[in-house]
Amino acid sequence: MNYIGIDIGGTGIKAGLISANGEILRFSSIPCRRRRKAEQVIGDIIEQINKLAKPEEYEAIGIGCPGTIDSATGVVFYANNLNWRNVPLKEKIECALKKKVAVSNDANVAALGEAKFGAASKYDDSILITLGTGVGSGVIIDGKLYEGYKGHGTELGHMVIVSGGVQCTCGRQGCLESYASATALIRDTIFEMQVDVNSIMWDYVNGDLSKVDGRTSFECAKRGDASAKKVVDRYVKYLADGLVNFVDIFRPQAILLGGGISAQGEYLTKPLQVLVDKYRYGGEESLPCEIITAKLGNDAGILGAAALVMQ
Amino acid sequence: MNYIGIDIGGTGIKAGLISANGEILRFSSIPCRRRRKAEQVIGDIIEQINKLAKPEEYEAIGIGCPGTIDSATGVVFYANNLNWRNVPLKEKIECALKKKVAVSNDANVAALGEAKFGAASKYDDSILITLGTGVGSGVIIDGKLYEGYKGHGTELGHMVIVSGGVQCTCGRQGCLESYASATALIRDTIFEMQVDVNSIMWDYVNGDLSKVDGRTSFECAKRGDASAKKVVDRYVKYLADGLVNFVDIFRPQAILLGGGISAQGEYLTKPLQVLVDKYRYGGEESLPCEIITAKLGNDAGILGAAALVMQ
Repeated sequence: MNYIGIDIGGTGIKAGLISANGEILRFSSIPCRRRRKAEQVIGDIIEQINKLAKPEEYEAIGIGCPGTIDSATGVVFYANNLNWRNVPLKEKIECALKKKVAVSNDANVAALGEAKFGAASKYDDSILITLGTGVGSGVIIDGKLYEGYKGHGTELGHMVIVSGGVQCTCGRQGCLESYASATALIRDTIFEMQVDVNSIMWDYVNGDLSKVDGRTSFECAKRGDASAKKVVDRYVKYLADGLVNFVDIFRPQAILLGGGISAQGEYLTKPLQVLVDKYRYGGEESLPCEIITAKLGNDAGILGAAALVMQ
Repeated sequence: MNYIGIDIGGTGIKAGLISANGEILRFSSIPCRRRRKAEQVIGDIIEQINKLAKPEEYEAIGIGCPGTIDSATGVVFYANNLNWRNVPLKEKIECALKKKVAVSNDANVAALGEAKFGAASKYDDSILITLGTGVGSGVIIDGKLYEGYKGHGTELGHMVIVSGGVQCTCGRQGCLESYASATALIRDTIFEMQVDVNSIMWDYVNGDLSKVDGRTSFECAKRGDASAKKVVDRYVKYLADGLVNFVDIFRPQAILLGGGISAQGEYLTKPLQVLVDKYRYGGEESLPCEIITAKLGNDAGILGAAALVMQ
């Protein structure tokens, strides 16, 4: 039997008809146009599903949505990006399409996708950390999504690792997100460029600070620039603080890195692995945790969403 | 039917014959004399159980033991305080007494005791944090103990909250334990007393720094001493950073505080509650988490150990 996987994002909504072994049989993407009311966006999703597949072609619908979601009821408690509050997403879609629907947070769903069909398929316990504009996370325990009580937990990006540190959008200071997101990396890259006017990072962006992105420091560090290396080392150190915390809490068999920064591959995972091996509780003699990159990319969302209803 | 609960500590080993509703029917305590071999200590425990109850009086044996324990196999992977490594505790006791045996970490077991018979009995999801020489922790999810993969997780006291901060015994810098243990509180109390020679904390300890303990700053803060208040405020702030992290990860319905410092009761829990309400992800509109004190005290260990085999 096949399943529908929906990945709601701030800009676009992706839908896939997914086979039980994770093959994407059909795919569509529509704009989200998030300034509209939730009702209208949900209407579009229903239409999108109906265009993608006939009711007899699929068994159930899984949905990944940004924000805090009570997965038991399928109510989107709060989604900042969509400006949604208490939206009964599951109920609306179930009512319209007469199919079983499950909803979870987008990062959770991506973690489930990687666990079922991607880089974590050989592990029972894994965590996906996405290093993008923010730091997202999803936790898999014994092959199942763990979301915290009523789906309000596993906000690992908002774990304070620097008490009293950099202000985070969530209201706290010193969250991992304020040090390990692409946003944070860009901030620190620009900071270090201002300290060192001779850094080759200036040439790399043609003297234009607005061109600094998550790659700038990494690429210039690879070319031997001392200031770029300083930025990368700091980034890795803070990220490792977060990852070791996750290991000491969940002791996953693997932590997967996704999102833009994870494109650095082993240049990022290797130094992180060294720090995780050294500093995890019990040290090198204790159960290991592999630091690897995610592999499903943009498909993790629809595959994981479909996996929500495969269980 | 009744159960045996064993609580192995660095100084003493407690044993209880416990009824299914958590009544302590009989109790005994023997010294641990931890400099001996594991074999000898285990021999004492077997004798202690045989003296406490006849085989037909109980169904199974639960054991709480310090250290990292694989609860699936009942092997004590590593227990620093006892100097044990890879001790097959479950197997040894099962073999000697022909009863079902379950073993878990002492802090985990105390959390289960509080969840089943104590301050968290009305909650499905709760966390116990013990504020003593170190910072211990146990996590209850949906009424069951969660220990991380193969029992190697939930070391919440070793979560770094101050990257690059105070050195911890575990090898990392800036763990919650380095800021929220009684040890840390005493360190900071002595620090502040040296800064302020007029603090009434000096009178409180009769001018003797060796008499400073976990109560000194709290008691003098209650009497209006500004420096003592500074110490308490800092302590509460760091502890709140840890607690909010736990809320954002697990979103428990309650966090219980145990250990020596928890004797401060509402003087400690009230300001923590304010900070948790303000800073948890989603803020005051999101699912609440009550900050309360544990209530079983020293009995949490044997009650929780017995609860291990009641499930």
